[in-house]
Amino acid sequence: MTYCVGMVLDKGLVMMSDTRTNSGVDNISVFRKMFYWKVPGERIISVMTAGNLATTQAVISQLEERTKAPEDRDNTLLKADTMFQVATEIGKLLRETVKQTQESNGVKGRGRFTASIILAGQIKGMEPRLFLIYPEGNFIEASFDTPFFQIGETKYGRPIILRGYDKTMSFEDAVKLLMVSFDSTLKANLSVGLPLDLLVIERDGFEPTHERRIMHDDHYFQAVSSTWADALRHAFHALPDYSFYAED
Amino acid sequence: MTYCVGMVLDKGLVMMSDTRTNSGVDNISVFRKMFYWKVPGERIISVMTAGNLATTQAVISQLEERTKAPEDRDNTLLKADTMFQVATEIGKLLRETVKQTQESNGVKGRGRFTASIILAGQIKGMEPRLFLIYPEGNFIEASFDTPFFQIGETKYGRPIILRGYDKTMSFEDAVKLLMVSFDSTLKANLSVGLPLDLLVIERDGFEPTHERRIMHDDHYFQAVSSTWADALRHAFHALPDYSFYAED
Repeated sequence: MTYCVGMVLDKGLVMMSDTRTNSGVDNISVFRKMFYWKVPGERIISVMTAGNLATTQAVISQLEERTKAPEDRDNTLLKADTMFQVATEIGKLLRETVKQTQESNGVKGRGRFTASIILAGQIKGMEPRLFLIYPEGNFIEASFDTPFFQIGETKYGRPIILRGYDKTMSFEDAVKLLMVSFDSTLKANLSVGLPLDLLVIERDGFEPTHERRIMHDDHYFQAVSSTWADALRHAFHALPDYSFYAED
Repeated sequence: MTYCVGMVLDKGLVMMSDTRTNSGVDNISVFRKMFYWKVPGERIISVMTAGNLATTQAVISQLEERTKAPEDRDNTLLKADTMFQVATEIGKLLRETVKQTQESNGVKGRGRFTASIILAGQIKGMEPRLFLIYPEGNFIEASFDTPFFQIGETKYGRPIILRGYDKTMSFEDAVKLLMVSFDSTLKANLSVGLPLDLLVIERDGFEPTHERRIMHDDHYFQAVSSTWADALRHAFHALPDYSFYAED
């Protein structure tokens, strides 16, 4: 399993992903699920992947044209005119990769070998944009009403984002919110695990504003995790008390 | 979908269930998913159901022997010696009902027509007990380490229970905790819906201590729902702030 969240704020884009992959609970590894490419001063494009690891790695490798000799590689994402074109290109690669593996294994319909991708980025002269790309290759874009996307194990960490998100929030608050959301998910699902990857991209920066791998011994994550239990308990006690005898 | 939670506290048992059933989002009805039977002063047995409605209604009808004339009915649950026997009996009925419907429809393996049941109750001279019964008819019992069970759409509402549960808590606090958990779930999944059913059974009471249907206009639920957003935001701001520049 996986947990990744991508968020659009007024200030820019924030992404966080875990790094755990598992094939059964007895076969757990750490793999990066967040990637980015940039042309300094012109564009930055980031993706996070969930789903079949062979599929997502194949997509990333093809994006980087790793089938070619290093000097011949030519990442099409760096030449696309718009983020919409980037999303279309990644969607096409994803669909073809899934389809190819399914066909060569005689798999019909949905299900096996599939993956989803969150795409975030900005190209100079245009807005920062956030997409969710489906295994079928089509995609949706974040909007005012739905300004964040989650992929993988999305449910445990969703209520706090629904309650805490505010598009005017600072990057620091957004990171704090994501830490709480990831902490709730990690506590409930063993197949989502540390370390986490964090990437913050300021609007019109075209560079990672802040990039970090959050390890098991990360002081801030540990502080959030331990303080959140108390803070929640406090919040809980601040609610009105229930009475068996209240008139309603 | 459905959301039901059963909890063991030092003081007794607390159960809450929603009442929404749906066959597609365009076919939504209200059905009770919580039932109980009692012998005053001697036993009280409660179940909550999730899954295929025809299956769960068939199980309840058979428990109550509704195939017989009212005067011939003889609920075996009211004669079982132990809660373990009650769980075994319900498990058997559930397995047989699922199996029968699957066989007469040519369905193989897991999946269709299945249901799960939370069983809670106490028989005089023994402890209050809580079970989770699977469609296969086998079951597990709540313990010190896992003192509550959820069925249906369990994920959204789980983190707050994990953080808030304390076996020494009052019934009122437990109800408050469940209201928050249900509110988070209702906010995230349309197929879980009001009204909610609430049942509190005090240890050695052998009667419902408190029983209530929480309707759409319930003042307390509305207060919890609206206050919780603020309380969470407050809790969130009480967490240490993230800094891009911190040494770690």
